[in-house]
Amino acid sequence: MEKGLRKIQWAEKHMKVLGRIREEFRKEKPLEGYKIGMALHVEAKTAVLVLTLRDAGAEVAITGCNPMSTQDDVADALRDLGIACFAKRGMSNEEYYKALEAVADTRPDIVIDDGADLIFLLHSRKQKVIGASEETTTGVIRLKAMEREGVLAFPVIAVNDAYTKYLFDNRYGTGQSAIDGILRATNMLLAGKTIVVAGYGWCGRGIAMRARGMGAKVVVTEVDEIRALEALMDGFDVMPMEKAARIGDIFITATGNRDVIRKEHLELMKDGAVLANAGHFNVEIAIPELENMSRGKREMRDNVVEYDLGDKKLYLLAEGRLVNLVAADGHPIEVMDMSFSDQALAAKYIAENADKLENKVYRLPDELDRIVARFKLESMGVEIDRLTEEQIKYLTDWRYGT
Amino acid sequence: MEKGLRKIQWAEKHMKVLGRIREEFRKEKPLEGYKIGMALHVEAKTAVLVLTLRDAGAEVAITGCNPMSTQDDVADALRDLGIACFAKRGMSNEEYYKALEAVADTRPDIVIDDGADLIFLLHSRKQKVIGASEETTTGVIRLKAMEREGVLAFPVIAVNDAYTKYLFDNRYGTGQSAIDGILRATNMLLAGKTIVVAGYGWCGRGIAMRARGMGAKVVVTEVDEIRALEALMDGFDVMPMEKAARIGDIFITATGNRDVIRKEHLELMKDGAVLANAGHFNVEIAIPELENMSRGKREMRDNVVEYDLGDKKLYLLAEGRLVNLVAADGHPIEVMDMSFSDQALAAKYIAENADKLENKVYRLPDELDRIVARFKLESMGVEIDRLTEEQIKYLTDWRYGT
Amino acid sequence: MEKGLRKIQWAEKHMKVLGRIREEFRKEKPLEGYKIGMALHVEAKTAVLVLTLRDAGAEVAITGCNPMSTQDDVADALRDLGIACFAKRGMSNEEYYKALEAVADTRPDIVIDDGADLIFLLHSRKQKVIGASEETTTGVIRLKAMEREGVLAFPVIAVNDAYTKYLFDNRYGTGQSAIDGILRATNMLLAGKTIVVAGYGWCGRGIAMRARGMGAKVVVTEVDEIRALEALMDGFDVMPMEKAARIGDIFITATGNRDVIRKEHLELMKDGAVLANAGHFNVEIAIPELENMSRGKREMRDNVVEYDLGDKKLYLLAEGRLVNLVAADGHPIEVMDMSFSDQALAAKYIAENADKLENKVYRLPDELDRIVARFKLESMGVEIDRLTEEQIKYLTDWRYGT
Amino acid sequence: MEKGLRKIQWAEKHMKVLGRIREEFRKEKPLEGYKIGMALHVEAKTAVLVLTLRDAGAEVAITGCNPMSTQDDVADALRDLGIACFAKRGMSNEEYYKALEAVADTRPDIVIDDGADLIFLLHSRKQKVIGASEETTTGVIRLKAMEREGVLAFPVIAVNDAYTKYLFDNRYGTGQSAIDGILRATNMLLAGKTIVVAGYGWCGRGIAMRARGMGAKVVVTEVDEIRALEALMDGFDVMPMEKAARIGDIFITATGNRDVIRKEHLELMKDGAVLANAGHFNVEIAIPELENMSRGKREMRDNVVEYDLGDKKLYLLAEGRLVNLVAADGHPIEVMDMSFSDQALAAKYIAENADKLENKVYRLPDELDRIVARFKLESMGVEIDRLTEEQIKYLTDWRYGT
Repeated sequence: MEKGLRKIQWAEKHMKVLGRIREEFRKEKPLEGYKIGMALHVEAKTAVLVLTLRDAGAEVAITGCNPMSTQDDVADALRDLGIACFAKRGMSNEEYYKALEAVADTRPDIVIDDGADLIFLLHSRKQKVIGASEETTTGVIRLKAMEREGVLAFPVIAVNDAYTKYLFDNRYGTGQSAIDGILRATNMLLAGKTIVVAGYGWCGRGIAMRARGMGAKVVVTEVDEIRALEALMDGFDVMPMEKAARIGDIFITATGNRDVIRKEHLELMKDGAVLANAGHFNVEIAIPELENMSRGKREMRDNVVEYDLGDKKLYLLAEGRLVNLVAADGHPIEVMDMSFSDQALAAKYIAENADKLENKVYRLPDELDRIVARFKLESMGVEIDRLTEEQIKYLTDWRYGT
Repeated sequence: MEKGLRKIQWAEKHMKVLGRIREEFRKEKPLEGYKIGMALHVEAKTAVLVLTLRDAGAEVAITGCNPMSTQDDVADALRDLGIACFAKRGMSNEEYYKALEAVADTRPDIVIDDGADLIFLLHSRKQKVIGASEETTTGVIRLKAMEREGVLAFPVIAVNDAYTKYLFDNRYGTGQSAIDGILRATNMLLAGKTIVVAGYGWCGRGIAMRARGMGAKVVVTEVDEIRALEALMDGFDVMPMEKAARIGDIFITATGNRDVIRKEHLELMKDGAVLANAGHFNVEIAIPELENMSRGKREMRDNVVEYDLGDKKLYLLAEGRLVNLVAADGHPIEVMDMSFSDQALAAKYIAENADKLENKVYRLPDELDRIVARFKLESMGVEIDRLTEEQIKYLTDWRYGT
Repeated sequence: MEKGLRKIQWAEKHMKVLGRIREEFRKEKPLEGYKIGMALHVEAKTAVLVLTLRDAGAEVAITGCNPMSTQDDVADALRDLGIACFAKRGMSNEEYYKALEAVADTRPDIVIDDGADLIFLLHSRKQKVIGASEETTTGVIRLKAMEREGVLAFPVIAVNDAYTKYLFDNRYGTGQSAIDGILRATNMLLAGKTIVVAGYGWCGRGIAMRARGMGAKVVVTEVDEIRALEALMDGFDVMPMEKAARIGDIFITATGNRDVIRKEHLELMKDGAVLANAGHFNVEIAIPELENMSRGKREMRDNVVEYDLGDKKLYLLAEGRLVNLVAADGHPIEVMDMSFSDQALAAKYIAENADKLENKVYRLPDELDRIVARFKLESMGVEIDRLTEEQIKYLTDWRYGT
Repeated sequence: MEKGLRKIQWAEKHMKVLGRIREEFRKEKPLEGYKIGMALHVEAKTAVLVLTLRDAGAEVAITGCNPMSTQDDVADALRDLGIACFAKRGMSNEEYYKALEAVADTRPDIVIDDGADLIFLLHSRKQKVIGASEETTTGVIRLKAMEREGVLAFPVIAVNDAYTKYLFDNRYGTGQSAIDGILRATNMLLAGKTIVVAGYGWCGRGIAMRARGMGAKVVVTEVDEIRALEALMDGFDVMPMEKAARIGDIFITATGNRDVIRKEHLELMKDGAVLANAGHFNVEIAIPELENMSRGKREMRDNVVEYDLGDKKLYLLAEGRLVNLVAADGHPIEVMDMSFSDQALAAKYIAENADKLENKVYRLPDELDRIVARFKLESMGVEIDRLTEEQIKYLTDWRYGT
C-alpha cells in the first residue's frame, strides 16, 4: 500500500489543475451527499480523481474499465483510504462484469465511465442515475447512437468532446504512450523502421507525429479522403492496408473500428512484423484470425507473444489490447490532469443542473472547458495575450475592413 | 503575353483536379449563359479558374482583390484570351475600387470573391446576383455577421469553409508561401532565429510548422487559451507579445485581427527586427504607429523597407500586406488547385440551385468537398482503404462492443 | 532461465548483422583456442555476442560493467548455457570489483570492455593480453591518455570509434533509450516540457532530437562554441546551465564529464525538476552535493527518488546512473547489433593480427566497419547506388571540372 | 548603383561577425600593401568581404566564379566604390575566362577562390602567389589531388574545411537556399511531394532536413553505405536512383559528382518531374543526354525549362546550375558571414605566415575557426558554459573514473 500511495503522491505532484480544483472542492463540498460510481483504469492518476471527488463530499465506488489495466498497489492504497474499490489486475471476463455490478449495486447518483460499459449495464438493469459522464470517443459514439434511437435513459456529459480532453488526450497522450508501450514491450529501435499507423484521427495523428519524432518512416492508412490528404500533406506516406502490410515493420491501429488488420493483411506481412493496438478494446486487430493462422504461440518478453505462421513469425503486443495501458502506464499524468479536471467539473455540473438536463449527450459547457485550459496554462507559468477593445470590435463588426 | 501564357500553362500542369473538372465542364457546359464577376488575385492559378469557367460556358469579368498582387503578364494574357480583366499591379486605392465597379457594371449573375470587397460593393449598389462564393476566412466572418444582422442580400457559399480549402490552403499554403516570401525579401538565414508567429489558427499553425522546419525557434502568441495550449504541446514557446517583442528576430502576424503588433511592442523590439504579415489586409501590424515613431525610411531590397527609429532600425516587409502574395507568388499551385476546384463546383452548384438557396452563408455541400479530395488523391496516384460492410455496421450499431 | 532464454531469442531475431557473422564464425571457428574476458552490461543483446564468440570457438568469461545493469534472468540463462558469468544485479562496489577480478583470473587472451574498468584492472595486475577492444567514448578517451603517457600495455581496438558504432549507438541508441528510460520512470508528458540537454556530442544530439520529436522544447548547454552553434542552427535554445537551471522541467546530462549539474545549479531549479543522466557513470550530476542539500529522500516510483530540499523537491532518476540502462533496457537491439558486430569482427581481427599490433589505440579497420554497414543495409532490404567508372575518375582526377 | 549599395548595406546589417573583424582590420591594416585577387559569386555578401579586405589595406580585384551568379547592381556598386570588378551576369564561357585572366593580370599576392578556377588558371600561367584560400568542397578535393601529385605551386588554406564554414554553409546554407530557389522557380507545393535528394553529405543532409521541414517525403540516394544508414536512421527512405527515378516529383542533386541523373534515370521518370542541382557546376544532371532525348524545349517561368520527351515532359531548373545561386540569392547572409569571416582571417593569416607555409593544402588554424564561432555566438547574444578546473582535470586524467 505504501508503494501505491507514493505513486498517487507522484501523480498529485503533476496534476496541478486537478489539484487546484480539489482545493476549491475541499472548501465548497459541491458533491456532499452524492454517491458516485466509476469505471476507469484504476491507477495512480485515477486515484487522484477519486480523492478529489471524495474531498468534494462524495461517496465513491470504483472498478476497472479494462480487465488488464488495474495497478494492484494503487487499488490497495485506495481501499486503505476507505474507497470502495473492486478492481484487480488480470480479472476474468466474468470477474470484470461482476465488479461492474458491484459498483452498480452501490446505487450511484452520478456515473463516471470509460468505454460506457457501466452505463450500458445500468441501462440493462434499468437503474436510473442523475447523470453520467463518458471519457472516450468510442463510448460517446455509442451513446449518441443510443440517443438517436431514443433509448438513452439519463443525461450524459461527453467529457471526451471537451477541447481540453480530446485535443490533448488522444493526440499528445496516446501519441506518447503508444510509443512508450511499444518501446517497453520490444526494446526495438524505431529509427529507420517503417511504422504503419491505421487511422489519422486525433490518436493516429499523435502516434504518427511521435513515431516520426523517433526517426521512423510512417505510413498512414485511412478510409476518409480528407484525412488521407492531410496525412499526405503532413509528409506521411498514405496507402491502403493491403500495400502497407507488405512493407511495415510495426503496425499500430487507432481507428476505433474492428478488423482493421485481418487475415488478408496478416498473410502479406513480413517475417518479424509487430502488431499493436492503440485504438480501442482488442478488436482492431482480428486476433481470432491470427490465432487460426498460427501453429503455435509463445511469450518472448512481457507483452510480446510470438505467433508461428509456419513460413514466418508475427508478434502481437499486449494481446491486442491498448498497448499504452497494458505495456506502459497509460496516458501521461499531465494529460489525465486535464481530462480528469473536466470529469471533476462535469460531476459538479451534473449535481448542480440535474433538473435542467434531458436524456441527451451534452458537451461539457465551454466555460468549464476554458477554466481547465486557463488553469493548465497558469500551472505551467504561461501567460497569453488579451484582445483589446478595438480588436474585439474589429472582429465583430463587418463594416470594418472595407 | 507569351510569358503570361506560359505561366498559365505551367499552372495548368499542376492543377490536375481543376483540370479534370474543366474537362467535364467543357462537355457539359453547366454555366452556359451565366455571367460571372470575380475579384481574386490575378495571377496564373486564378487564370486557370477563369478559363475553366469560360470553358463551362460562362462570360467572365475579373479584377484583383488586392492592389499589389496582380501579375501584369498574366493579366495581359487573359485579355488576349478575350477575358474582361481590369486588374493592374500597383493600383492606387481609387483605381482599385474603380476596377471593382467595372466588374459590377458587367452585371454578373454569380460572384466569386476574395475578401468580400466585391460582395460589399454589390450590397452598397443594391445590385442583386443569384449567388456568390467567398474564398477567405476574413470574408466569411464578415458575411456571417451580415447574415446575423439580416442584411445579406443573396446566398453565399463559404468556399473558405470547405475542408479541401481551409484545411489545406491556410495551413500548407500559407505555411509554405509565407516562408517563401520572407526568404525572397530578406535572404536571411532562418535557422537559429527566433520567429514570433502571432495567432495559432490554421495559418499560424502552418507558418509555425514550416518555420520550425527551416530550423527556427518559434514563439507563438495567442488570445485563445486552448490554441495556446496546443501550441505549447506542439513544442512551441508561448508568451504574450509584450515578452515576445523583446526576443523575436522575425515577426509574422496571422490572426485576422488588427493592431496585433503596435507601438508598445515596436518600442520593445531589438535593432534589426523584421516584420511581416501573412494574415489579412495590412492592418495586423499598426503601420501608422510605426510611421509615427520613425525619423525616416528607405527601401533596402525589393519589399524590405527600413524604418529608422533613432536608437534602432526595424524592417517592414511588403508594406505589411500579405507577404506571400506581395513578395512571393501567393499560394503554391497545388493548394489553389483544390480551392479553385471548390470554387468551380460552387459556381455550378449556385447555377443549378439558385431557386432553393436563401440569403444565407452556406457551406459547400460535403459531397462536392469530397469529390475534390478524391480527385486530388487520384491525381497523386494515392489509393486509400474502404470500410467493409462489417465495419460500417460496427461503427453505427452501439450494441457492439459491450 | 526459460525467460532469459526467450529474451535472448527475441534479441537474436533483431540482430541480423551479428547473426550473419555468427553463421560465418560457426563454420570458420576464427577464435578457436582463445579465451575472451568481457565486462559488458549483461542482458539479452550482450548474450547474443557471447554466444557468437562461443560459436567462433572461444571460451568466454563475462561480468557486468555497471553494478545495476545486469538482467538476472539473462545471466542465469548464460550460466545454464555453460558460460562463466559473474554478473548479478545490484552488486555492491566490492562485489563489482570482485567479479572483475574473477574474469581476470580466467587469464583471457582477448578482452572486450565497456568503460575500461577491466582493462585498468589488468594493467594494475600487470596481466598482459593479446589485445582488447573498448566500447565507449569515455573508455577510449582514457585509453588514449594512457597511450600518450606510454603506459598502455597492450593494443586496444577503439570499437567506439567505428562509424557503425559511434555514429549510430550514441545518437540513435542513446537518443531513443534515454527517452524510454525517462518515460518508464516518470510517466510524465514530454510535450510542452522544457528539457535541458547538457552536451551536444553524439549522445546529446540524439537525445535533443528525440526529445523534440516527443514535443518538448529543448535547451542545450555546451562548453564548445562550435557545437553550441550547431545546436542553435538545429533550432534549439542554447544557454549556460546557470540560466537553463531556472527554466528546465527535466535535465538530461550527456557530456562525459563530472559535476555538470552541481550545487549552484540545483539551488536555482524549480520545484519538481527531474534529473537524469545519460552520459557516463554517476558523476555528471553532483549527487553528493544534492544529498548534502537535502533534508530527506524517498522513492516515489521505481527509479524515482524525491529529494526534499525544504523549499522544493527535486527528483533524481536511476540514482544518477545511465537512465537508459537502469530504468529501461539499454540501447535498442538493432543498435547493439551493429556495435556488437564490430566487437565480434574486432576480436577476430585481434586474434589474426596479434603479432602486428603495437601497444596503441587503433580504429577498427575501415573495411570491417563497412562490412557491418553493408550487412545492415542488406538485412533491411535496402540497396544503394554504385559509382560508375566515369564517376570514380571524376572524383579522383583534379583536371576535370576546369 | 544606389540599389546595389543598399543591398550591400542590408547584408552588412546581418554580417555581424565580419563586421567585428572589419572594425579590427580598419584599425590594424593587416593587409596593407597586398594585392588580393578574388573569384567569388559577386553579390551583396561578397561585396562586404571585398570592402572588409579593402579596409584592411588591400587592393582588391574580383570576378565571378560562375557565369550566371553575378548581381549586376552589386557589381556596379563595387566599381563605383573603386574596386576592380570584372563580373557581369550571363557571361559567355569565353567572357568568363577572360574575366579570370583580368584578375590574374592584376598580379595578386593572395587569392580567394570558389571552385579553384582562378587557382588553376594561375597554375597554367605558372604565376606564383603567396597563398590562396578555397571556399568549396569541390575545389578542395581537387587541390588536395594536386598536392598529392606534387603539382601544387603555392600554399592553400582550405577555408571550406573550417568548422565554421563547412558545418554551417553546406548544411544550413545550402539546405535553406536550395529550397528557396526551387520555390521561387516553380511555385510548387512541397508538402506531400516526393523529393529525391542525391547525396547525403553535408549539403544533402541540409536539403533533406529542410525538404522534410516543408512537408515533403524525402528519398535519399547514396553510394556510401555508412551515409546511407544514417539517412535511414534519420527517417528518410533510401534506394538506388533507378528506383527513386520512378517515384520522385522533384530531384535535387548534391553529390559533387557528375552524371548522377542520367539517361537511364530520365527514361524512368514521371511526366512533370522537376530536376534541380545544388551540388556543383552543371554536371550532376547529364544535360547533354536530356537534350538528346528531347524533341524541343521552352522556358515556362524564369529558370524553368520544359523538355518535351514525347511521352512526357521534364522540367530543368536553372539550367542545371546551382539552383540556390541562379534561382535565389545564394546562401543566406548569416551563413556567408561565417565563411567570409574565415576568408578574411585566412587572408590575414597568409600575409603574416607567408614564409612558414609550404605548398600544401592547410586547414584554417583552429583558433581562428573558434574566434569566428565565438564572435557569432556573441553576435546572437548567446552565452555558453566554461569547463571548471575540476572538469578539465577529469577529462585529461585517465586515472579518474576507475
